[in-house]
Amino acid sequence: MDQSELKMHHARLAALCAAVPGPDEVALATTRTYLDTLIKPHHSLGQIETLLLRLAASTGKAAPTLERRAILIAAADHGVAVEGVSTYTEATTAQMTLNCITGGTAINVLAAAAGARIVLVDAGVAGDIPPSLSLRQLNLRKGCGNIAREPAMSRAEALIALLAGATIVQEEFNNGLDLLALGEVGVGHTTAAAALTSVCTGTAPDQTVEHKLASDELDLEHKRHIVATALQRYRDRNRVDHDAHRAAQAAGLSEMQDHAMDLLCELGGLDIAVLVGAILAATAHRVPVMLDDYTTTSAALVAQALAPNLRTHLFAAHRSPEPGHTVGLAHLGLTAEDQAGPLLQLDLQFGEGSGATLAMPVLTSATRLMSEMAVCEPVGLARRK
Amino acid sequence: MDQSELKMHHARLAALCAAVPGPDEVALATTRTYLDTLIKPHHSLGQIETLLLRLAASTGKAAPTLERRAILIAAADHGVAVEGVSTYTEATTAQMTLNCITGGTAINVLAAAAGARIVLVDAGVAGDIPPSLSLRQLNLRKGCGNIAREPAMSRAEALIALLAGATIVQEEFNNGLDLLALGEVGVGHTTAAAALTSVCTGTAPDQTVEHKLASDELDLEHKRHIVATALQRYRDRNRVDHDAHRAAQAAGLSEMQDHAMDLLCELGGLDIAVLVGAILAATAHRVPVMLDDYTTTSAALVAQALAPNLRTHLFAAHRSPEPGHTVGLAHLGLTAEDQAGPLLQLDLQFGEGSGATLAMPVLTSATRLMSEMAVCEPVGLARRK
Repeated sequence: MDQSELKMHHARLAALCAAVPGPDEVALATTRTYLDTLIKPHHSLGQIETLLLRLAASTGKAAPTLERRAILIAAADHGVAVEGVSTYTEATTAQMTLNCITGGTAINVLAAAAGARIVLVDAGVAGDIPPSLSLRQLNLRKGCGNIAREPAMSRAEALIALLAGATIVQEEFNNGLDLLALGEVGVGHTTAAAALTSVCTGTAPDQTVEHKLASDELDLEHKRHIVATALQRYRDRNRVDHDAHRAAQAAGLSEMQDHAMDLLCELGGLDIAVLVGAILAATAHRVPVMLDDYTTTSAALVAQALAPNLRTHLFAAHRSPEPGHTVGLAHLGLTAEDQAGPLLQLDLQFGEGSGATLAMPVLTSATRLMSEMAVCEPVGLARRK
Repeated sequence: MDQSELKMHHARLAALCAAVPGPDEVALATTRTYLDTLIKPHHSLGQIETLLLRLAASTGKAAPTLERRAILIAAADHGVAVEGVSTYTEATTAQMTLNCITGGTAINVLAAAAGARIVLVDAGVAGDIPPSLSLRQLNLRKGCGNIAREPAMSRAEALIALLAGATIVQEEFNNGLDLLALGEVGVGHTTAAAALTSVCTGTAPDQTVEHKLASDELDLEHKRHIVATALQRYRDRNRVDHDAHRAAQAAGLSEMQDHAMDLLCELGGLDIAVLVGAILAATAHRVPVMLDDYTTTSAALVAQALAPNLRTHLFAAHRSPEPGHTVGLAHLGLTAEDQAGPLLQLDLQFGEGSGATLAMPVLTSATRLMSEMAVCEPVGLARRK
């Protein structure tokens, strides 16, 4: 990619980040007032009320409908898998992606139950997958670099993957999109998620690499060592990509945003880059984004570093058995203390957006309360004086 | 009620309790085996898998469908409300019941969203409610006794209410019922719930009367005192209902079951009696029961004392902000440690079955995994050796 193209891509990224709006205070205030007119004791719906307030702030609508729902699933391989950080082999990624195309995986079933369409993206699967109308293929690179030894990808690759994610969501938005859930398929992605979460939240690998249901097959100590090695490599990197930084600067990106892109290139992955772009494009249109587990949350951490307004639009579906996921959610203000905690706590470790999809009906039922519940004035409740 | 009628009612209760089956080990084993053939890593669906195992054990079907869903809401007043244990007045109960008939309350909206029908029962509302096709009225008694000073009801009243709850569920079952959620409407019911939970679990009122979101309006110390007074009265009762005990014995009820009925009469309420009957009738037909908050859970504690097999069929929808609710759930084996914890934790304090209804789609989505997911053999996942 030559310098002018690099600058143009950075400029598209800058525009995307700038387009993400903050909370809509008018919709928020309207919903807050309206909630207290509904026939129910004040605040009796607990976090459902907080959820409705957050939805109003995100969508800009006091009573949004979330009828048009999609799940974007990014599939990719991670070079770091060769370090033995997963119990699965690389071949699994292509197989899982194929299964998702064929139908019959958990996410196909859950998406049908939730009335949501699946948008499956091959962001960089190592194995061969025959072209399919149900799959968007980036054809950029087969798997990313091994983050313990080298960057996951170049700046140009990261930009292409990110902007492709954004374009796919833009197309989905053009077709009608009220709620976007995220998921991922691949081997090695939680290693990248742990590395990104460590850097974004300032948390050591002994906390970002942890699993309360870890099987004996997975050597957590080894995985921690690999993440620590990747972090050290990231900190020590002396190879500075001058072209990228010049292009970023020329395109008006801040130093913080440039750092976030560096981080994505060094420790992320192709799937994560696609997810970052998807998050930016959805939230730029005030489409709430339902995070799934560790990897999607780490993508949100990078996206938030690119566009801090973005957290307004994020929703936590479930809490994975990996405590690092909770570290990431806390950094995004998505905990019970924030009145925005994960809706489900089912120890899911399936990925593919299964948690986000299972949680969708809670959100859609909640929105119906705003439009369908009766208001208090005509039929008020008698309160003890 | 004369002695022979009392005996007949006890005999119906005894038959109902005896009809509740334990776990279906064949369905359980089939589901366990089948789950491991689905195209997913073993146990990756976490508590969704436990949920499916529990549903199989309950329904006796390896792949049950939960298409026909109902929410039974029991409305009643509690005499103890005169002690000032609630921020609402008795008039609220009739008003809330009417609102539920008219439509437009949270539960009407949530039930529609969950595709569940509402079965509303006036178990003993103090205020007047005009007859409605949408309301089953027991016409037994308007409100129950003040448990701080007197029994909630007589043995005959408790039996009539309980058996009416059972009959209503039997009718619903005849019309098609795969999943029953429970809810309640009324003022003062959490005082009864706290008293019942204290006795059933051996927990002092300082733990069963607690509220992590309590408003200043509610004097928890006073409520604790009232519950302690009711418990003391229950322990000191010297008026033994010989007729009831003779009838129970003649009908073949065990001493434990007789005790449970005593407890229901002394510290329960008309709504709770209806809920106990509903739980017994549903579980006798292997219809899983989704508990809502504190009051429905306290009814399950009494029901379990009557029919210990019953816990197989219980599911926890959400955790209310009242820690006593968690004490009750723990006694029923419905905690995260049991791999059967509440599905949602949204700090709901609305009642009416709102939590149980919100959680329904999680259960129904889960069941679709069993019938719609592909199995592993043809498209197995490659595992690292």
